[in-house]
Amino acid sequence: MTETATTAVDVPSGKPAAVPTPRPGDPRLARLSLNQATVKRWSLAEAVEGCRRAGIPAIGPWREPVAEMGLAAAARLLRDSGLRVSSYCRAGFLTDPDRSVALDDNRRAIDEAAELGAPSLVMVVGGLREGERDLAGARARVVDALAELVPYAAERGVRLGLEPLHPMFCADRAVLSTLGQALDIAERFAPDEVGVVVDSYHVWWDPQVYEQIARAGQRTVIYQACDWVLPIPADALLGRGMVGDGYADVGGLRRAVDAAGYTGDIEVEIFNADVWAADGDAVIATVARRHVQYVV
Amino acid sequence: MTETATTAVDVPSGKPAAVPTPRPGDPRLARLSLNQATVKRWSLAEAVEGCRRAGIPAIGPWREPVAEMGLAAAARLLRDSGLRVSSYCRAGFLTDPDRSVALDDNRRAIDEAAELGAPSLVMVVGGLREGERDLAGARARVVDALAELVPYAAERGVRLGLEPLHPMFCADRAVLSTLGQALDIAERFAPDEVGVVVDSYHVWWDPQVYEQIARAGQRTVIYQACDWVLPIPADALLGRGMVGDGYADVGGLRRAVDAAGYTGDIEVEIFNADVWAADGDAVIATVARRHVQYVV
Repeated sequence: MTETATTAVDVPSGKPAAVPTPRPGDPRLARLSLNQATVKRWSLAEAVEGCRRAGIPAIGPWREPVAEMGLAAAARLLRDSGLRVSSYCRAGFLTDPDRSVALDDNRRAIDEAAELGAPSLVMVVGGLREGERDLAGARARVVDALAELVPYAAERGVRLGLEPLHPMFCADRAVLSTLGQALDIAERFAPDEVGVVVDSYHVWWDPQVYEQIARAGQRTVIYQACDWVLPIPADALLGRGMVGDGYADVGGLRRAVDAAGYTGDIEVEIFNADVWAADGDAVIATVARRHVQYVV
Repeated sequence: MTETATTAVDVPSGKPAAVPTPRPGDPRLARLSLNQATVKRWSLAEAVEGCRRAGIPAIGPWREPVAEMGLAAAARLLRDSGLRVSSYCRAGFLTDPDRSVALDDNRRAIDEAAELGAPSLVMVVGGLREGERDLAGARARVVDALAELVPYAAERGVRLGLEPLHPMFCADRAVLSTLGQALDIAERFAPDEVGVVVDSYHVWWDPQVYEQIARAGQRTVIYQACDWVLPIPADALLGRGMVGDGYADVGGLRRAVDAAGYTGDIEVEIFNADVWAADGDAVIATVARRHVQYVV
């Protein structure tokens, strides 16, 4: 970390860094977490090492790289790393036609989250079936399936985090599109059992987002930071931008979740082909700079 | 119109038609309108002729083809055609940095709508400035600019229709993303001065859409029909699907606007490169079949 503002280059913009890269131990990094999807080409071990080199104190692992390493080994690695586990991504897809398969898979994800010491499991609830137009029915299926999972998760100390996704993903990934709607469901359960995920990329446009963040209070299980950039790429899933490159008020939303009582990690999650093609350390350094520039 | 269900082919799906093409005079076509953008390669005169051949009783013209023909000639053509003018597309972009240019252009659009006998002018309110993150500020600019335009439009008998756009377009095209939000603004003005546009493509995902349609009542100035299809194309603007090809409950939303007191046209507006590449008469025939199959 000997870069200075004048030599470092932000990725993926290629622009000179606007601020010096914060060094390990910098108190402004205290709540920063790296969601592993941001460095998708790295293994879990590489991501953990990358965080340690850069002084990022927390990580949000994904199921696939955990499975690659093996659950027990991944749990040991994370425990020994000294990093906090900020959340575990990802389960859900509760609207799938084959409900028992979906429930079984979610129970496995809950078991994994417990073993990894993750405080919460991020739930992307699923979209419509091919050709289905019954949104209300799909939403009801989510509630029913969730009711089966909550006791299982609660027994294992894993809090389920319902993630509203941008309405662009309503048909294929999540019939929960707003924070208010996610809270309507979460509030059927105890606050320590079911909460909500606030991801700036998904919620920034919502005219009710600030009042719903206030309503969420300590139901917010994780704040994820990511920017809305244009154009939307051919694969719409990969349109997530580096914080500061787009239109979302990532800092304003962070202040709002904090004002509502959230004290947890600020987890940077970016799916973006250009970010994935860049050097992992350069990605993390940009994440850290943008964090102090736009979010802290 | 001698096609039968067994020989006609839907566009752009290429699938055999599921129902016979309704003939001119069929009462099920009584409220159907063709938004001109659906047959984008046709001139206004060609679109008018296409509607007459197919027995579509109304049309929603766009400014560009009207300008191509000349306003006076376009007004004469529409008057002589016997077609209703269902709406006029499109003005707005009130968040533009150069406010006086935007207002001047909107006043011209209002004049044109009056001359064409259009009952309403569709307003796409505009997005954020490059790099701007102040959504609340942009929304306030919309309200301010609208307040200047309303008396001008009211004097000319043109009702302004605020169109909430899908949140996918919040940054670049419309900081109004939900019907509820559009109504919050519309309700500052008289119902015959400012209403809302309900476009199934833009609002289908909204968990509050049915209650907001009920709230809108007769503020709905036009119901536009279009389906949500996947994948979202590289140019996200062109992702609008033929009714029946996707996930939006276009018929359910139509029943809701009617139940709220709407009695106007059902205007089919589809921006889609495959639709535009197809024969215009085949497009209109598919529009008519899908209308009786899914919407009436």
